[in-house]
Order: sequence, then structure tokens, then C-alpha cells
Amino acid sequence: MEQFVLSFRKDISLIEEPEGEQVILQSPDCKLTFKQVTSGLRTALNILVTKGATAQQLMDLVQQSDRIVGKLKWFYHLQKFSELGWLCHSVFIDDIPLAIAIPIASDNQFPARDVDIQCQYTLSRFAYCHQVEQQMVLESPLSQAKVILPNWRSAALVAKLAKPQNCHNLATEISGITEEIAQQFVALLLNTQMLSQVQQNGTLEEAENITLAQWEFHDLLFHTRSRKGRHNNPAGGTYRFLGKIETLPAVKPKMSADSIDLYKPDLETLKAVDPPFTSVLEQRTSIRNYGQTSLNAQQLGEFLYRSARVRTLIKMEPAQISSRPYPCGGAIYELEIYLVVNICEDIPSGLYHYAPEAHQLCWLSGKTDHVEELLKGASQSTGSPDPPQVLMIIASRFQRLAWKYESIAYATMLKHVGVLYQTMYLVATAMDLAPCALGYGDSDLFAKAVGTNYYAETSIGEFILGSKDPNYQES
Amino acid sequence: MEQFVLSFRKDISLIEEPEGEQVILQSPDCKLTFKQVTSGLRTALNILVTKGATAQQLMDLVQQSDRIVGKLKWFYHLQKFSELGWLCHSVFIDDIPLAIAIPIASDNQFPARDVDIQCQYTLSRFAYCHQVEQQMVLESPLSQAKVILPNWRSAALVAKLAKPQNCHNLATEISGITEEIAQQFVALLLNTQMLSQVQQNGTLEEAENITLAQWEFHDLLFHTRSRKGRHNNPAGGTYRFLGKIETLPAVKPKMSADSIDLYKPDLETLKAVDPPFTSVLEQRTSIRNYGQTSLNAQQLGEFLYRSARVRTLIKMEPAQISSRPYPCGGAIYELEIYLVVNICEDIPSGLYHYAPEAHQLCWLSGKTDHVEELLKGASQSTGSPDPPQVLMIIASRFQRLAWKYESIAYATMLKHVGVLYQTMYLVATAMDLAPCALGYGDSDLFAKAVGTNYYAETSIGEFILGSKDPNYQES
Repeated sequence: MEQFVLSFRKDISLIEEPEGEQVILQSPDCKLTFKQVTSGLRTALNILVTKGATAQQLMDLVQQSDRIVGKLKWFYHLQKFSELGWLCHSVFIDDIPLAIAIPIASDNQFPARDVDIQCQYTLSRFAYCHQVEQQMVLESPLSQAKVILPNWRSAALVAKLAKPQNCHNLATEISGITEEIAQQFVALLLNTQMLSQVQQNGTLEEAENITLAQWEFHDLLFHTRSRKGRHNNPAGGTYRFLGKIETLPAVKPKMSADSIDLYKPDLETLKAVDPPFTSVLEQRTSIRNYGQTSLNAQQLGEFLYRSARVRTLIKMEPAQISSRPYPCGGAIYELEIYLVVNICEDIPSGLYHYAPEAHQLCWLSGKTDHVEELLKGASQSTGSPDPPQVLMIIASRFQRLAWKYESIAYATMLKHVGVLYQTMYLVATAMDLAPCALGYGDSDLFAKAVGTNYYAETSIGEFILGSKDPNYQES
Repeated sequence: MEQFVLSFRKDISLIEEPEGEQVILQSPDCKLTFKQVTSGLRTALNILVTKGATAQQLMDLVQQSDRIVGKLKWFYHLQKFSELGWLCHSVFIDDIPLAIAIPIASDNQFPARDVDIQCQYTLSRFAYCHQVEQQMVLESPLSQAKVILPNWRSAALVAKLAKPQNCHNLATEISGITEEIAQQFVALLLNTQMLSQVQQNGTLEEAENITLAQWEFHDLLFHTRSRKGRHNNPAGGTYRFLGKIETLPAVKPKMSADSIDLYKPDLETLKAVDPPFTSVLEQRTSIRNYGQTSLNAQQLGEFLYRSARVRTLIKMEPAQISSRPYPCGGAIYELEIYLVVNICEDIPSGLYHYAPEAHQLCWLSGKTDHVEELLKGASQSTGSPDPPQVLMIIASRFQRLAWKYESIAYATMLKHVGVLYQTMYLVATAMDLAPCALGYGDSDLFAKAVGTNYYAETSIGEFILGSKDPNYQES
């Protein structure tokens, strides 16, 4: 492990007070003060904030000035820097960096695992390269570091590792890469969990782990980046577009003038006569088959009013918010409800947008081919022979929420879909209707059917509703 | 655009009937039958299922045998193949493939956009390379194709494109890459939405799009891969580990013998005397400050019983399921509730797991440093001066759901978190307690605090509960 060049992350600065022996190391969230700094320590710290050196070089240097006591202290300091996630490990070709591993979590593990030149290694199926601020970066949800690949040779080596390689084979073909450098490169990637070792029986370490085997790439990547712990990106309500991009309105403008006024129930009456909450919660179930008479306009109006209307608009800085029956982070309300009305008494079949402030259905289209496909998809998803009477598609105005929240925006939207699902389930149960949430749908098809920009607004949830068979018995 | 080699996807097969003139093209989900096939068409189809050829070569060949009528029909067929997403576009160096673009969505767009040799291009911040079945693959949530990079030179070119490049500069340094090949490579990546063009004013096409600017990489990647439309991976309940890996039990075994029996309310009484559902739904709100007396053990027991107990276990093939008060896809119930009890009358402070079948709290630890950090994180997340009385952390036994569902597993879990949030909100409201869902938490910290394997079970949601101030007024 001695071969790596050690240096501090770029956001660690060294403050040397002009007089006195005090030196301060400052990171964005932590400060270390060194009192009575010896000359060897001072030199070593200066090297770590600039070009870096190997552990051996640093130790020799400290020992030369500060003797054996200084060396022991130095081990302690180095361990501390490592635990804080301050230490980068680099591999160079001559003076050109080939790979720089930068910690992104505070308890960064660099296990100092050695490379066996007899062994084959291959790129983990969780590792991915992408461009971040004009640099190729190798990341993985298994890693507590990111690896900068500043040279095209670095990416070429990573690409060769798509197939199992030993260091000898890895070093061939690419100009300037010796077997020794290939071995250092493999060691860096192995210690940052970017590689998996091929076992003697030919299987991969990674594939033999049945826990990891059941994770998909996109799921694990998303999990690690939308939760705290394994990255150092900003998270939460950071308002990073404030003053740069205008936020979307609290309520989406009506999508057509051709609208149907919906029935409004009397809430005060419902608050008095509605069934007790526990009886509704305990009775709630998914129902995929329907009664002989279909849902009617009054029921649909009441359902939407009780589940999803805008109760009030609230002036707030920096952006207007609203109050609706289901909860929403920051009261931002990015979700929109679209309805494919298949059969509903007094409402023509077709595709509608629910205008939650006006409490109206805005007509978008009849049963076009795309709309029929949406219905067909919903039927397949339930596995029931009855087509849904009304399919509600929950779309997100993504930028409405992403304008405020960072790292967690899409995860929060999916939680909102869940919150709305349960609200709809319970309202439908209280109204003695047949509700069912669906598992997935086609977002590209939805964008085509409605004519939205896929990146601005498309579907992320589906819910079907119908009339309940009076003889329905829970199985 | 003439330079690309066209060929069929590997899963398209050509069936030539030994007698007669009929030829069939078969994809996994569609079949095209050609009757009275002319010899030019037959040859061209045979080339498309094997090594491929450029559009010009194919056209010349068809025209030679089948004359002008055959050529017109050929254009029509080629258009159809393109719409079906059957046509791959490749760039070769001599006879070695450098990049192969394979459609992954049925309405694959290959816009035939030309490369300007004066212009600079750069890798989109949404494009990523990763290893799939021992091949480097370039993918992007903006693309309806994936690009196989079979050669280390391909990855080296992609890496150089991390910085804006024109084709001339791109061709330097890497052996075997001419300016013409670099141009073809850029054209392929541009037409599969992997690159962004640098505008005359120096900005990127991609960055100027304010809709895209508000998407984060991990969010858009996850959205496109967990919804249908923009990929051809299997999705839904595919049970892909059936017979290979054992599924997790329907109820997690109790985590400690040191358990507290919780109070059980009488449900029949609640079904009769609970407040009407609408009054609970309309009154629900997030409350972050508490009354002077804390929550007590009876309230906590009642809350958990009403929100999250196991009602019944249900024998099913291939795996046992259960019934609980909140809905769950497939009744799989992968979510677990952990409690950090800060202040609760009659329950010692510490970390517990809720055993939903026994309706008990299982003691895990006291207020260790990690547990204190979890509480601190929750306080920061609410922004309230009152620390939570009880912090409920919702974890997922990931493999319990991922064993059945493909593509949609993690998205479904987050919807379940939302469904549970709203159930908890409404139960707390009916009980006159103070509930609040939180936006995010630290999953690595949780795994350390509880001692779980991060990849097997960690936190994906947080909810705080306390006693309500009798003088609480909604602001």
C-alpha cells in the first residue's frame, strides 16, 4: 500500500499563524489545531496540502526532523486524517495523475488490501463513470470514495477491466502503462470497492454475495445518493435555483377551457356523519373488480374533493404554497392527477386533468390510441378481467419540488405518491367504492398521451377506482 | 449519416421457409412476415441479421436485384425496422467495432443529426459507462438506446469527451483513431443523446435547458429505469430469484429477548367511537412542538397497534405474506419500524425494534453516541427547538421485496414509506398526538447504530411523534 501518493482533499486548508508555533487545518465542517508544531510535522502537513507524497516519504521526513517521538505522533495524526475522510490516494505515471481517490464519506474505508498478481479482477457491476465538471469520475454505491480519472488512459484501463484481467494483461496495449502501474491502479480501485476479485472457482466475490445479488444498479445508486451517509453532496431544502430560475406556480394553470364542474360534498356534514376512522382504516383493501352499475360523476367529484382539492393558497417567501388534504414536504404540492375516464355515469369517456383549485375536470382528449394503451397497461398491471372504470395517473411537476430540495427530490416525490395513495384508499373506503393502487406504468406513453415534456412532467404513480359490487366479500 | 453500419438487434431472428418465398422476422414481442420476397430484399435481410452494412450498401444491393420498385419498398421496410427499435448503428475501425448503438425503447429516435467539425462536443452529465455482462456500456436517461463500447479505445474517446472537444483534437493521442473515425464516433454519440454541443457563446445546449438543469443525475437515472417506457428490462413481479435464493420471512424474527409487551387497544370499541374519518383527515397536520407531559407507553402501544401491527399471517406460494393496517404491494411488508425513545413515560430511553406480530418493543441499546446522533439529525431536520419524544425510523428489508419485483423494487418501497407516513399521521391525529414525517436521514449511521448490514436492511424514512400541547393552534 506504500505506493500511493497521499494528499489532503482540495477543501482542506492549512493556516499557519505568522508568529507562534500553532498550525490549523480547516475543512468545511471541522477544524484541527496543532500546538507547538515541530518542523517535521509542519513540513509534512505542507506537503499534504500541496503535491502530496507516499506514506514512506512522509514518515522518513518526519523522523528525520522529529525523531522517534515525532514519528509515533505522526502515525496518530495520519490515522485521524484518514478517519476524517481527508486523505486522497493517488496513482501517477511519471508526474501525471492516473487516478485520484477522494473520500466522500467521513468514515472512509481504505482497507489496504493488497493485489495478487496471479489473480484476476473485474469492474464491479455497481461502479460507473460519468462526467462531473469536465472530469471523468468513477463512483459506486459500494464505495465511500470517488475516483477521478484525469487521463484517457485511466478510462481505457477501467474499460479493459469490464472483462476479468490480471495486472499483466491489463498493462498491455495502452501506451505508457507498465505492469507496476497497472498493479497500483488495480490496488487503488480494489481498495475503493470499484473492483471485484475473481475467486479460484471462477465466480466473482460480488456475485456470491446473495444480499448484493438482489440489488439492481439503479436502485442501489439512487438509495445511496438520496439518503445521507455515503456522499457529501448538499441535501435537503437548499433552494439552489433561487434567483436563477423561476419556480413553478403552486397550482398548475388549467390545461383546457373545456371543463366540467365537479360535485362538492358538504364537509361539515361529513365530519359529523362519516364512519369512524378506525373502521375505515381496518376495512381498507384493494378491490380490482366492480359492481354492475358504474361510478358516477357525483362520486368522482366527492372522491377528488376529499382526497386532493386545494383548500387554500398560502403566500410565502420565496414561493407560494398550498394546503390540500394529503401531506406534502414543504407544502409544495408537485403532484398532478390525470384521469382516464373509461366508464363513469354523466362524464364522457376520455382523458382529463384535475384542476384542484377550481375543482374541475379539464378535457384533454378522447380515447386516442395512446389513452387506450394507458388503460390496457393498467388492466395488465392488476391482472383483473375488469378494465378500470377510472384510471387516475399521478404525475409530478418535477421542477416544482427540485427547485427547493437537493439530493432527496425524487425520493420525496415517491413518498408523496404513497401518501396520496393511502389518502385515496381511505376516502374510497369511506365512500364504499373499489380502490386499487398499481405497481407501475409507462411514463413515456403518458407524456405522449397528454403532450407534456417528459422531463418537465410525467407519470410516477397509478391508481384505479370503480364502483363496488354490493355483494363484495373480502377473500 | 451514411457512414454507420446498420444491423439488427441480436434478438431479431430471420426465419426462411425452406420452400416458398415467405420470410419471417421475429423479435421477442413482434413478428413481421414478408411474402413473395424478392432476391435483393432477401439478401439485405440476411445481411442485417449478420454482419450488417451501411444504408448505401444495402440500397445499392437491393436496387441491383429488385430495381426501383424494390428500392422504394426497401425504404419503407427500413423505416419500419427503425420505428420498431430493431436497428443498431455501429462505428468500426477496420473490422473491429468501436461503438454499437442498440435501441432499448420501441420508438427509438436516431435523429440523423450531423456533426460540425468546427464545433465542440462534450459528454452529457447524464451519460454513464458501466459494466454489464463483461461489456462496457454507455447509457443515459436522455437516450432511447445504449451504446456498447467493446474496445478500450472507445472508453478512452468517451473519457476525452469529458472536456469539450472538436473531432480533430479528439483524434489525437489514441492509436488507431483517425479524424474521420472520431467524427463518426461523435455522430453516433450525438444521435443517441450522449453528448451535448457547445454553443457559439460557450455554453452547453444541455445546461441552457432549465428543465434539465433542475434534474440531478441519480434522480433522472432512477426515474427512467424504475418506470416503463425508456428501457426494455423486465419489470414487475418477475420472481427472478425463485428457486435460487431463499426469500426472507414475512415477519422479521425478534431482534432481542429483552422485550416490552405493548398495550393493545380494543379495536371494536375504536370502530364505534373513533372520530369520523373526514374530521381526522381534515384535521391532520405536522406538529413539531410538544406538550409539557410526554407521550406514555399506552399511547405508544396504541399508536403502533393501530398503524403497523401484523393482523394475520397468510400462507401463500411461493412465499408467506401478511396483513397489516397499511397497504403494501403483494402484501410483502418489507418495512420495519425502529424507535429511538427519547422521552416516553414508562419506557426506558433507548433504541428498540418494533416486533409487529408479538406487538412488543425489543430492546437494542441505550442512548449510544450513534443513537444520540440519530436524534440530533432528526432535530436538525425539523428545525424545531423541541427534540422528538419518539423518533420512528422506517427501515427496509430490501431483499424481501426485491426477491419478487424487478425494476420497480426501490421505487415501490418509497411509495410504501409514504403510505405508512399517512397511516401514522392519521392514527396520531385520531389519538390527538403530535406527528411529523421527516425529509431525510442518515442510512449509514442507522446501520451502525442498529448493527445491520447496510445492503440488507437500513433506513429509508423517518417519522417523529410526541404529546400534543393542549393549547396547540394550527398556524
